[in-house]
Formats: sequence, C-alpha cells, structure tokens
Amino acid sequence: RIDGKRLWDSLMSMAEIGATPKGGVKRLTLTEVDRQGRDRFRGWCEALGLTVRVDAIGNMFARREGRDPARLPVLLGSHLDSQPSGGKFDGALGVIAGLEVMRTLNDLGITTEAPIELVNWTDEEGSRFGHSLMGSGAWAGVYPLDKVYGLQDVEGVTVDQALTAIGYKGEHPAKPFPADAYFELHIEQGPILEREGQQIGIVTGAQAQVWYDAVVTGQDAHAGTTPPSARRDALVTAARIIDLVDRMMRTRGEDGRGTVGQLHVLPNSRNVVPGEVRFSVEFRHPDFAEIERLAADFPREAAAIADGARTPLALTELFRLPAQPFDASCVDLVRQAAARLGLPAREIVSGAGHDAVYVARSVPTAMIFTPCKDGLSHNEAESIEPGEAEAGCQVLFEAVLARANR
Amino acid sequence: RIDGKRLWDSLMSMAEIGATPKGGVKRLTLTEVDRQGRDRFRGWCEALGLTVRVDAIGNMFARREGRDPARLPVLLGSHLDSQPSGGKFDGALGVIAGLEVMRTLNDLGITTEAPIELVNWTDEEGSRFGHSLMGSGAWAGVYPLDKVYGLQDVEGVTVDQALTAIGYKGEHPAKPFPADAYFELHIEQGPILEREGQQIGIVTGAQAQVWYDAVVTGQDAHAGTTPPSARRDALVTAARIIDLVDRMMRTRGEDGRGTVGQLHVLPNSRNVVPGEVRFSVEFRHPDFAEIERLAADFPREAAAIADGARTPLALTELFRLPAQPFDASCVDLVRQAAARLGLPAREIVSGAGHDAVYVARSVPTAMIFTPCKDGLSHNEAESIEPGEAEAGCQVLFEAVLARANR
Ligand SMILES: NC(=O)NCCC(=O)O
Ligand SMILES: NC(=O)NCCC(=O)O
Repeated sequence: RIDGKRLWDSLMSMAEIGATPKGGVKRLTLTEVDRQGRDRFRGWCEALGLTVRVDAIGNMFARREGRDPARLPVLLGSHLDSQPSGGKFDGALGVIAGLEVMRTLNDLGITTEAPIELVNWTDEEGSRFGHSLMGSGAWAGVYPLDKVYGLQDVEGVTVDQALTAIGYKGEHPAKPFPADAYFELHIEQGPILEREGQQIGIVTGAQAQVWYDAVVTGQDAHAGTTPPSARRDALVTAARIIDLVDRMMRTRGEDGRGTVGQLHVLPNSRNVVPGEVRFSVEFRHPDFAEIERLAADFPREAAAIADGARTPLALTELFRLPAQPFDASCVDLVRQAAARLGLPAREIVSGAGHDAVYVARSVPTAMIFTPCKDGLSHNEAESIEPGEAEAGCQVLFEAVLARANR
Repeated sequence: RIDGKRLWDSLMSMAEIGATPKGGVKRLTLTEVDRQGRDRFRGWCEALGLTVRVDAIGNMFARREGRDPARLPVLLGSHLDSQPSGGKFDGALGVIAGLEVMRTLNDLGITTEAPIELVNWTDEEGSRFGHSLMGSGAWAGVYPLDKVYGLQDVEGVTVDQALTAIGYKGEHPAKPFPADAYFELHIEQGPILEREGQQIGIVTGAQAQVWYDAVVTGQDAHAGTTPPSARRDALVTAARIIDLVDRMMRTRGEDGRGTVGQLHVLPNSRNVVPGEVRFSVEFRHPDFAEIERLAADFPREAAAIADGARTPLALTELFRLPAQPFDASCVDLVRQAAARLGLPAREIVSGAGHDAVYVARSVPTAMIFTPCKDGLSHNEAESIEPGEAEAGCQVLFEAVLARANR
C-alpha cells in the first residue's frame, strides 16, 4: 500500500512554494515560483533514481524503467502550476501522488513489465497565457509550438521568454510519443462526490468548451460633460455582454457553464467614460452540440449589443474543444481498483479541462477524481482530507500497476 | 495684449512632461512626472520674480505683489495633474495662461493695486486617490487634512507618502485665506461652445455630483465545474449594476450623467468565477435635487440586485457636491471682457468639477471656458486651436486686471 502520511507531507512541502497568506497557492506557470516547484519535484524524482527529461514546452517526464524493453511506457501525472489565487491540491495532487506511486514501487522492490513515466505538464491552468492545457496541448500537436511560443501574458512576456528565463525550455521534442496508457488523479473541483458521500470518481470523459478573447471599443470621454447621446461607453456594452453570457448559460440548465473571469478597463479612471474593455468569455457543456450552438449564437448576439451601442466588438475564438470520452479499458482499471479497495465510487464527467483530454487523443487515458470540500476549487480555501488523497493515490497505484504488468 | 505664441510654446513645453505616444499626457498627481511639471512651473514663476509658496497638500501659490498692502489678493489658476490618458490642455491651460498673464503684466510694467496669486492646485483629477478636486477641497476645509493624507492609491501609497516623496508637502497651512476673487480658465471639455461657434463660455456655475466606491463580494469558483445554481458571480452582479447606472442616467434625459469609469476584478483569471469586483460610480446633474434622488434610489436598487444574487454590495459614498453658482460680479467681469474684445460668448454651466467649485465657497469666483475639438476631453486626442487659447487668456487677463485694479 502507498504511504498516506508521506504523500501528505510532500503535498504540504510543495504547497510551501508560492503559499499565500490565505492558505492557498500562487504558482503561476513559468514564473520563478513555478521554477522552484519544478526544481523541488525534479530533486525528489532524481532521489528515487528516476531519469528526468524536459521537452520544448517545459513538460517534465520522470522515467522508471520496466523489465520488458519492448513495452510502451505507462504515463501518469498532472500539473504543478496554479491559479493566481489557487488551492494546494488542484494539479499538485496528481503529480505528488504519482511520486508516491514511484516511491511505493521502489519500497516494494517492484519492477514493472512496462516502464512508467511521471509527467508534470506545463501551464495547465491557462490563466497567464490564455490557453488552458497548454503544455499537453502543444505535446499533442493541438497548439503549434511556434504559435504557443509567441503567446504573451498581460505584461507582454512571451511563453518562449518565460520558458528560457526559468531554464525549462528542454531539448526533447514536444510531440506525442507512443505510450501504453495515461492515468491522472485530480480533485473533482466540484460538489458531486462530496454531496453523495463518494470517495472516488471514475471519470468517463470531459465536457466540451469554447474560449474567446473579447475587445469592446468605445471612446474615452469626460464623465461630467459627455451627454448620454454622445457616449460610446465600452464598459456598459461589456456589462451587457457579461449579462448575455450568464443568460445563455442559464438557458442550458444545470449543465450549462458560461463565465467572464477576466476583464480590464481602459483607461480605468473614475471620471472617464471607458474607451476600451478587454475580457475573456468561455462556455462549457457535456454535449458538444450545445457548444457548437453557443459558438454560433453568442458572437452574433454579442455583436448586436455592441453595434447597437456604437461600440464595436472584436471577438477572437481561442479554442474549441469537443467533449472527450476516455478509454473504456483504462476507465475499467480505475473502476476495478476502487471496487477491490471497497471505496464508494461513481462515474462522473469532468467539468474542468485536464491535460488528460489532450493526451487522450493519442494515448488510452483515464482519470480518477477525489472529493474536495464544498466543491470549491480555483479558490485559496480549496481543501481535502488526507484520507481522500490516500484513497485516490491507492487507486492510482493499483490502476497503473495493473496496466504496466498486464 | 497677451502673447499668444509665448502662451502656446509654454503649453507645449509643459505637455512634454508625461507626453504619451498617442499625443496626450499622463501626469498623474503626486508622481515623479507631476514633480517635473511642478518644478518647471516653479522655475518659470521664479524667473518672473514671483514668490512661490507651497501648502500642506502641495497646492502652489506664486505671488506678484500689488501697490496697496491692504488689498486682498486676486487668485487665478487651475491644475497641472492629468488623467492616466489625458490631454495636453485639461488644467494646464489655466495654469499656463495664468503664467502668461503674469508675464504680460511684467512686460507692460504694470503694478496692480491688489496682489495677484497664481495657483496650481494638487490632484484636481481624482483618478489616483478617488477624490476629485482634492487639493482645493483640502484647502477649502471640505476634506479634513488628516483624512486626505490617509487616502491610498490602488498600490496602497498614501497621499502623505506621495507628497513627501516628491518634496511637495509644504509648510504653509492648507486652509482658506482671505482673497478678493478667483478666476479659472479651462477648456469646456464638452461640445457646446464648438457646436455653436462660440469662443468664450461665461461659466455661471457647476453641476451637482455624487461619487461612490462599490465592492461586490461573491465567491471564487471553478468556471468549468460550478453549476449555475451554485455560482455567486461578483462580475455578473457588477455588470447589472453598471447597466443600472446607465439606465438611471438615461431616465434624466440629456442633462443626466452616470458613469462607472474604474473597475477591478479579483482574482481576474479566465477560468475562475470572479469572487470580488471593486468599481467606482458617479452621477452628476445641474439640479442638486436630482442628485439627492439618485443618492436615495441608487444604493437601494443596486443592493437589491446584489442581494438577489447572493453577492452582497458594500457601497461607500465618497462625496456629494451641491451645484455651485459662481459670483455674479466676477462672472460679469468675464462677460464684459468678452464683449469688449468682440468675442462670441455664451453663458454655460460646467459639466466637469473644477477647483473653482471649492474655492467659490469662501472666495468670489468665476470661470472662463474655451472650446475643445469635438468636445473631447479625458482623452489623449483632446485638442484646441492656438487662437482659442489666446482668446481665453486675453479674457482672463482683462478680468483679473479689472478686478485687481477696481
Ligand atoms: N483542472 C483545472 O482547473 N484546469 C484548468 C483548466 C480549466 O479551466 O478547466
Ligand atoms: N475638469 C476636470 O476634468 N475635472 C476632473 C474632475 C471631474 O471629474 O469633474
């Protein structure tokens, strides 16, 4: 069995890096803090005798050899980057649990048939450069590498510059290599498992999404002198589009998701009618057909609002992601492990995007969810119980071992 | 007559300090750039033999002695601070025209009966610390000095720290002293004079205003996993309040003003339902009774929106300013000067706030407006004609001279 205390201690050790006063973590991708997290992770891996390689987008692969040189590796992992005000477990759980799997294999002196590789994917969160699942997306060939290198954060720093600055622009190509399977353990980040008293979510797939960048252009004008008829207020238009996003979400019932999470006003001065507003928009739904409908309707309806107010809207679709079902045989290994361990479990569709979604395009993939308190994530108050982490890690261990030795 | 070319050259010289690529000015109050503007102004004044004193809130007074030691000074001036993306003339025109008045008096060898004092008021714009007309407001006793010292910008720098850092926390008390009159020349910042082909606005007073700080508190949550029923989205609520402000403005017709100019989202990440939004709100109207009604209705209606969405609103009223009529005899001096010079002129109520509004509480006051292109201000494209500046400055010269020699 895996060591629950050792797992928890390493989780807490990783959570020190980028710790926030409110008990969360700020470890934005490709920052100096991310580098510290990566370095600590690399040190742990090397202490176990694993060989660490880094690819051109900074994805880290820590390899443990198997007995049969002909066998393809079994992958497991997640991400160490966080939201600007994120929690300790989103991403880190899957990586550190993977480390615990490796430690347990060492402790038990097990040599698996297939090699095992533990992955830390770059920039899963997408909050800095605007593309979630960036590292796995570049690896999977969804995001062309030269395009990804050119993406900028709000300060104009490119991915290429940031990778180089922290010394994690690796020599290995960022592209899919043959692998036997990929397993990712993650907190659910939603309320379902907790509400039903389940310990394990057997993730059957992930929902569809579409993300946009929006820019509304009005005209800077004096707030005291400019009469209503002369105003071209970019923020009033943005406000109506935010309301539209919320309404379009709600017409899809409890399965709908529609969010404006990021917004910047220019010039952002109290007594100036705003001349420009830049904001993000995203929709999600388990059914890709709904996303296709939203992607047809939203740009048209938003443009109508903007044009009616003489404040034109420029909308850029960043990516559109179909729903991704996971591999039946891998999902089954998760189901069997939970059953063998007597852990209450249910099937679940992921509301969040995960690196597993892109990996699944070329590698048989499954995910394991564990509950989190009040379903809260992307929040510094994100919290889980040590026993929940341990149970999830044990399921991960058994699924990986079963696959590597099949 | 005043020297229009010298006036324009000095305006352009001041506009170099904080010049922006788009042809505007960013000379935010109490910054290093503001210090450079103040130093250049002080140098010009001292070169004319004026005595410059600075008060405890950084207001600068450049004095030219008169013949009669018993006479109270006639004040003139405006402000050198700007919006974050402001124009070259908002404020600067009144100060530099005041300088040109002093230069002309020197050139002509005129000694006025009363002394004349040229003022550069601190932080007229209010965009950095949230209180427009801050320097004149502190001087007039409207803003208690210790409260003003404690005001913070978004980075947490206090007024006290900023004043000290640029060396403009002066030794003279910031409180009203007896003065005979105050004259302020300013661009209209609106479209009326230009539309009617007028050269001079005889400003009879300024409209009423109320300003607020608003904070909506929701809960950070994952954009992909959090169902509509569980969301407490602070930005959706803020958006509805922005729409409310716009609607409340429009029910007042063309005289209404309602603006949300500044807004910050937390944590401001694309895939996080926003947990907090902070924004400014202001209303203006020529009739104070309308402002009183808005100040009664808006907090109640906004709170209803916020409470209905389980995202409570904390609203702080920053200030409420009645309409301010100017002094009939001072206004008359402006009217007479324009008539004597044969300049097309009309009476006008100021849509913007001006230091003159607070000065008028203890000193007989009048203002002179000149047109600006397309009525545009608080915009880097703000523009005026040299001839318009010259005409306004000549009216200022004659009004001040008439008052000082009466
Ligand atoms: N797991 C997770 O929070 N991923 C961030 C990308 C997303 O928004 O789904
Ligand atoms: N004149 C001017 O733009 N003043 C700024 C204060 C206001 O918003 O009215």
